[in-house]
Amino acid sequence: MSDVPSRPARAVGRKSIRPSAVPRDLMADEELAGVWTAQVITLLPEAFPGVLGLSLTGKALKEGFWALRTINLRDFGEGRHRNVDDTPAGGGAGMVLRADIGARALEEAIARARGDVPRLLLSPRGRRFDQAMARDLASRDGAILFCGRFEGVDERLIEQFGLSEVSLGDFVMTGGEIAAQALIDATVRLMPRVLGNQHSAEEESFSSGLLEYPQYTKPAVWEGRAIPEVLLSGHHAKITSWRQAEAERLTKERRPDLWRAHLATLGRPEEDREL
Amino acid sequence: MSDVPSRPARAVGRKSIRPSAVPRDLMADEELAGVWTAQVITLLPEAFPGVLGLSLTGKALKEGFWALRTINLRDFGEGRHRNVDDTPAGGGAGMVLRADIGARALEEAIARARGDVPRLLLSPRGRRFDQAMARDLASRDGAILFCGRFEGVDERLIEQFGLSEVSLGDFVMTGGEIAAQALIDATVRLMPRVLGNQHSAEEESFSSGLLEYPQYTKPAVWEGRAIPEVLLSGHHAKITSWRQAEAERLTKERRPDLWRAHLATLGRPEEDREL
Repeated sequence: MSDVPSRPARAVGRKSIRPSAVPRDLMADEELAGVWTAQVITLLPEAFPGVLGLSLTGKALKEGFWALRTINLRDFGEGRHRNVDDTPAGGGAGMVLRADIGARALEEAIARARGDVPRLLLSPRGRRFDQAMARDLASRDGAILFCGRFEGVDERLIEQFGLSEVSLGDFVMTGGEIAAQALIDATVRLMPRVLGNQHSAEEESFSSGLLEYPQYTKPAVWEGRAIPEVLLSGHHAKITSWRQAEAERLTKERRPDLWRAHLATLGRPEEDREL
Repeated sequence: MSDVPSRPARAVGRKSIRPSAVPRDLMADEELAGVWTAQVITLLPEAFPGVLGLSLTGKALKEGFWALRTINLRDFGEGRHRNVDDTPAGGGAGMVLRADIGARALEEAIARARGDVPRLLLSPRGRRFDQAMARDLASRDGAILFCGRFEGVDERLIEQFGLSEVSLGDFVMTGGEIAAQALIDATVRLMPRVLGNQHSAEEESFSSGLLEYPQYTKPAVWEGRAIPEVLLSGHHAKITSWRQAEAERLTKERRPDLWRAHLATLGRPEEDREL
């Protein structure tokens, strides 16, 4: 994360915003240009941009195709230790993030947001993130991503700000930061100019509702295993239909739920009830 | 990532291992002590430890409760540019990771693995990662995590090494690195001593098959919203039963699939067929 500038944070009373990954001048330009902007509220601002600052998402960030801003929850904490949490009402293990502290960070993010910017809380209780949600997010002007830590956040914060809870899946992590990065990566790569010619977003898992067919490249034979003959035949129609059949076979075998949804989308009856 | 040592990689012929986050001396000790070890094969070794080097997982890494090693796929590439990929057999956009290159990296990881170490490929075609898988992984001796990039990896690599494909969810990312970090975070936090007294792994989403009940903390009233009275009552039995009822209500509302699975686990008939 050598490209995070070490200059002091911009101060607004007790509040401050630390620019992340891009110099402040570029940030300002991006605000004018109105690029998709992720504002991440977190206790670990140093975790960003992290992986997002590398490879295709990092290149797109540096070129200003999207913008990233972190808001340090700790800056809104109270007392000598800038506390942000307290013990759960009713008892129990762990600590709960205070609603009043979280509210100050959210107000800061909302004040700076432009346009149509959903407010999301990364939480295992949320709706599971999927490709449709990534497409929807990519069509907005950005997102405010609130990363939980500890035992959870005060429920009243979720109600007051109408936060949409989004989950990466049915598992628990130490915090929402990795989930926020996954969500941003999946969203940013759908934006024009990010993938370039390196990749086709059309021919991949979930774009058609099916898992992706198997891929092969040189050498033609490796460890006694040969590339399927049809792929070397040069018959484009046969290759297309082999790939379609393989995508259907894999989806049926591995994800009967996706297969049923795919059939429903096609308006066909469910032919494979036994799945 | 200031704690990644900048000393040169350990060279074994053309192969090299870059220690990540912990000094090499500590790595050696950990090998002797036999702690859970993640070996990550990636084109972006600089993405690690990333978030995993911070907070609870980072503290546990520094204290040697688990270990992380990255293997740079590029080190096994061929030619002047150390190419690792080639065009897809049968045509199409993007590039496919070569089986022979991936095999060299996997052989390196397998040679260094001790004990019961599953070989995973992060891929949207895989079985969806969940809390049960995290528990299973935490009970092993480590994991080899192969991070895909580009259009995919040559199918023969998956077959030859019996890689288990694991997916973070039904969405596509630019690579497997963030997925690997999510999987490692969810696994490491289940290990003894990692969470300490800060958190209870028993009372959280999915440990009981239910989503977690709402949490509250001070102040008692905020923005006109009061903490539910029962939580301030001091009646532990009433608090427990309120929390159970709320966890059940949230799970029924948001995740009928989990609710059905929960009922099945309890051996009860499905009372709520309408869900």
